[in-house]
Amino acid sequence: MSPSEVHRVCTRFHAAIELIGARWTGAILRVLFTDQHRYAQIKAAVPGLSDTMLAERLRTLEADGLVERRVIPSSPVQVEYHLTDKGLDLEPVLEAVMSWSHRWIPLPGESVSARD
Amino acid sequence: MSPSEVHRVCTRFHAAIELIGARWTGAILRVLFTDQHRYAQIKAAVPGLSDTMLAERLRTLEADGLVERRVIPSSPVQVEYHLTDKGLDLEPVLEAVMSWSHRWIPLPGESVSARD
Repeated sequence: MSPSEVHRVCTRFHAAIELIGARWTGAILRVLFTDQHRYAQIKAAVPGLSDTMLAERLRTLEADGLVERRVIPSSPVQVEYHLTDKGLDLEPVLEAVMSWSHRWIPLPGESVSARD
Repeated sequence: MSPSEVHRVCTRFHAAIELIGARWTGAILRVLFTDQHRYAQIKAAVPGLSDTMLAERLRTLEADGLVERRVIPSSPVQVEYHLTDKGLDLEPVLEAVMSWSHRWIPLPGESVSARD
C-alpha cells in the first residue's frame, strides 16, 4: 500500500470515541442511564470518583451537549443532571461496550485466563 | 433513593470503556479494522500520532490481548499488528461509535449548530 493509499481514520469517529472514553466519562454516562440524576447519586455510583473530577466532567459533558443541568424548584432547590437527545442516543454504544465487557473482561478477583 | 439503593456502575463496563477510549487507542483499533497492519500504515492513518505514543499503545493493546504482533518471515522481515478475537469482537462497539459520530459530531469546519 503506497502512502497515497492510506485510509485515514475518520476524524468524527476519533473525536467521539475519545469523548466517550475519557477517564470517568463513560461511567458517569452509564449512571445517568440508570435513573440516577443527582450529584450525590452519581458520585456514590462510581467508586473512586472525586468531587473535583465529577464536577469537571459534568461541566465538560454539558459543554459537549451530552448532559443538561436542571434546577428543580423544590425546597431546598435540587440540581439534576439528565442526558440530552445527543446523550441518550449513545445507548447503543454503551450497550455494545457492556456486552463486549461481559464477554471479555473478567470479574474482579477472577483470573484473566482459567487455563493458568 | 437512599444510599443503600445506589446502583453502582459495572466495573467491567468501566474498565472496557476506558480501555477502548484511551487517547489514540480507538483510532488505532479502527485502523486495524481497515486492513492496515503495518506500523508505518497505522501511523500514517492517524494524524498527530507520534512514534512514541504508537509504540506504547501497541504494547498496551498487545498486553490487553486485543492486538497480536506478527513477524512475517520475508526479506526484510516485516512486523504486522492484527486484531485478536477479543479485538475483532469490538466491531459492533466501533460501528456504534461511528454511527453516533456521524449523527452528532460536525465535520471539521462545519458549524456545531446550523441554527447559530
